[in-house]
Amino acid sequence: MTSDLEALKRDMLRLGHAARAAAEILAQTPTAAKTAALKAAAAAVRAAGPEILAANREDVEHAKARGLAGPMLERLVLDAKRLEAMAQGLEDIATLPDPIGTEIARWQRPNGLDIARVRVPLGVIGIIYESRPNVTADAGGLCLMSGNACILRGGSESFRSSTAIARALSSGLEAAGLPAEAIQLVPTTDRAAVGVLLTMTESVDVIIPRGGLSLIERVTAESRIPVIKHLDGICHVYVDGAADEAKARQVTLNSKMRRTSICGATETLLVDRRAAGTLLPLLVADLLGAGCEVRGDAETQAVDARVKPATEEDWRTEYLDAIISVRVVGGVDAAVDHINTYGSHHTDSIITENAVTAERFLARVDSGIVLHNASTQFADGGEFGMGAEIGISTGKLHARGPVGAEQLTSYKYMVRGNGQVRP
Amino acid sequence: MTSDLEALKRDMLRLGHAARAAAEILAQTPTAAKTAALKAAAAAVRAAGPEILAANREDVEHAKARGLAGPMLERLVLDAKRLEAMAQGLEDIATLPDPIGTEIARWQRPNGLDIARVRVPLGVIGIIYESRPNVTADAGGLCLMSGNACILRGGSESFRSSTAIARALSSGLEAAGLPAEAIQLVPTTDRAAVGVLLTMTESVDVIIPRGGLSLIERVTAESRIPVIKHLDGICHVYVDGAADEAKARQVTLNSKMRRTSICGATETLLVDRRAAGTLLPLLVADLLGAGCEVRGDAETQAVDARVKPATEEDWRTEYLDAIISVRVVGGVDAAVDHINTYGSHHTDSIITENAVTAERFLARVDSGIVLHNASTQFADGGEFGMGAEIGISTGKLHARGPVGAEQLTSYKYMVRGNGQVRP
Repeated sequence: MTSDLEALKRDMLRLGHAARAAAEILAQTPTAAKTAALKAAAAAVRAAGPEILAANREDVEHAKARGLAGPMLERLVLDAKRLEAMAQGLEDIATLPDPIGTEIARWQRPNGLDIARVRVPLGVIGIIYESRPNVTADAGGLCLMSGNACILRGGSESFRSSTAIARALSSGLEAAGLPAEAIQLVPTTDRAAVGVLLTMTESVDVIIPRGGLSLIERVTAESRIPVIKHLDGICHVYVDGAADEAKARQVTLNSKMRRTSICGATETLLVDRRAAGTLLPLLVADLLGAGCEVRGDAETQAVDARVKPATEEDWRTEYLDAIISVRVVGGVDAAVDHINTYGSHHTDSIITENAVTAERFLARVDSGIVLHNASTQFADGGEFGMGAEIGISTGKLHARGPVGAEQLTSYKYMVRGNGQVRP
Repeated sequence: MTSDLEALKRDMLRLGHAARAAAEILAQTPTAAKTAALKAAAAAVRAAGPEILAANREDVEHAKARGLAGPMLERLVLDAKRLEAMAQGLEDIATLPDPIGTEIARWQRPNGLDIARVRVPLGVIGIIYESRPNVTADAGGLCLMSGNACILRGGSESFRSSTAIARALSSGLEAAGLPAEAIQLVPTTDRAAVGVLLTMTESVDVIIPRGGLSLIERVTAESRIPVIKHLDGICHVYVDGAADEAKARQVTLNSKMRRTSICGATETLLVDRRAAGTLLPLLVADLLGAGCEVRGDAETQAVDARVKPATEEDWRTEYLDAIISVRVVGGVDAAVDHINTYGSHHTDSIITENAVTAERFLARVDSGIVLHNASTQFADGGEFGMGAEIGISTGKLHARGPVGAEQLTSYKYMVRGNGQVRP
């Protein structure tokens, strides 16, 4: 065992060194070469289609044999359409503005020093994710466009698919004259590899976990490298007493039911007591009518016999399913307190026609995304106009909200002088 | 022991809860109230002068009894002048622009959604620092101006001084109607308190260590909270073959000798082989003449008999003293490779009249601050025009280079709609 772990460490360190070397080259690579590599990678994914799909069939068979089913299995499956979407995704990333080299700010000092704050890549990004094999292409492409090398660690169930995809990406990089090691997949399903990756402080600059709560918790506990966290999305809609009926109904229904499995889906509806006799019955009827299970407090249960009782645990639960918890609260401040206590600082929306109440909600709710009269399902880099995203950060450090190419960068100060010395 | 630790944990959690509550209030506090509190705190520091100086005398006596001497003791000592500088520093912070509430960006989407990216405080900041008691006022003031509550953990040698200063700050906060718990000092010198603080993920948002390598290493290893690192400054001056003689001489001497104990002081001089016969002897003579010990490679030793041999270890050493290591390199790329290998990604300068060479250096050196024809001692928030700073970050995540009020902020997205739902 010990010698196995030593061998694993050596392999991982080799991966790290190669990534660091690739990152140094990528940091100096002009936009045209990066977009050429992304286009070549897209072509390589299309060319390797049969190979990728065959690898995926193997993954799916093994997963079925191990009892995987339902949405987890569904996420794992690739077909011609998903393959084309993956290639198209890489081409879309190639059309994004290159953040690297951008002057964020520039100013002169009284002593004549010229100070520029310029965007640079982060360096090497470690991405740890679960079953969806398309993340291999999405994350690899986004890291490349932002000038970063990446070390990808996919889920073991999608290992064969991800390996085939990563091979296609590397051939695209090489075709464009860039180092194949700019996008590397950890070449083993050994769980210990994650533990090693999280301690490679010399060769990895940031860790981005994408997955369920247990993965995020393990990464937070073990990582010696800074983490951009993508925690669960316990999102809320608060329907104020001054809400417009039509907006309240359409936004609530869309926030919960458009897609129930995404992190921006609403899990708890808060309704102002002033609207308990008017809007609440309509909202509950809409949700029940759409096939959503409703778990409510006493006031909500009084509205419809089909409403089940909500427990304290419900306010803390990310269902990711057609279930919603509903609570009647005494106005905007009570709503804010509930959200800041039970929420996950992800995305929360207020429905009201009162601008003062809306601004109070936007200012006080401590979440990455706060909305007024709009669906929580807009919590998405694409919907924000940022192009592809690697996830939604619920942390406050570095990046908050959608993490796109720009959020995968750092900056440096370039100071130009003429012989200045400090008095 | 166990019950002591349990009691300590309870005390620290109480501190954390109070900080979180204060942070919620500070996040919504207008600029005028924050500046009033800073001015009241300055007045309180002046009024408590005799008390603070008496506490400091006790600290100094205990430190002397424990054998503390030299620069470490010197840093600990307060006098009327340093006390006034501390009060003035708080008043200076009150004149800084308030970063909170600033719109960093705002745009409209085709569906009519209005998206604003707005600066917000980080929340609660834990600051762990060593002997200088004035950090208590500087850090507390900067956190307050940026809308953050802070938990300060000073060095045990300055505990009495810091306690007296923190008391004055709290009375200033209360005089302005803000919660006294916005600035709290850990009320014990027990080392275990640091360990507890580093695990308080619920109540502390970011940890900022200020101190020597061993402190930074302990914090990095133990912290479960994101860290803004302030590592050592192994800074370089590279004198290119195309350097102007006067600029090379004045910038090199200033970079090393203006103050040798600050993190922006140069530790290694790299000289282009093309200048080894011309500039190198002048630079070495200047340094020796100013009382600096010079440790050089073989080519540098050949210049002057007083040059001592440099070892591999010298390239990795932050002397913080009148010692410099000198190496002759084969041009700008060799200089960059040396800096990226041995440096600490802090601050590095090139001296050259060749603009192409300069830009190559600025682009390739992987440091927070890179300069052309200017002293590395400009690595300072004040010199950058940012006002007060809490340190220089050598990490790439969140903040790089000087950490001022703006760097102590996060942002949130405020999205304003009119009933939009996602298709």
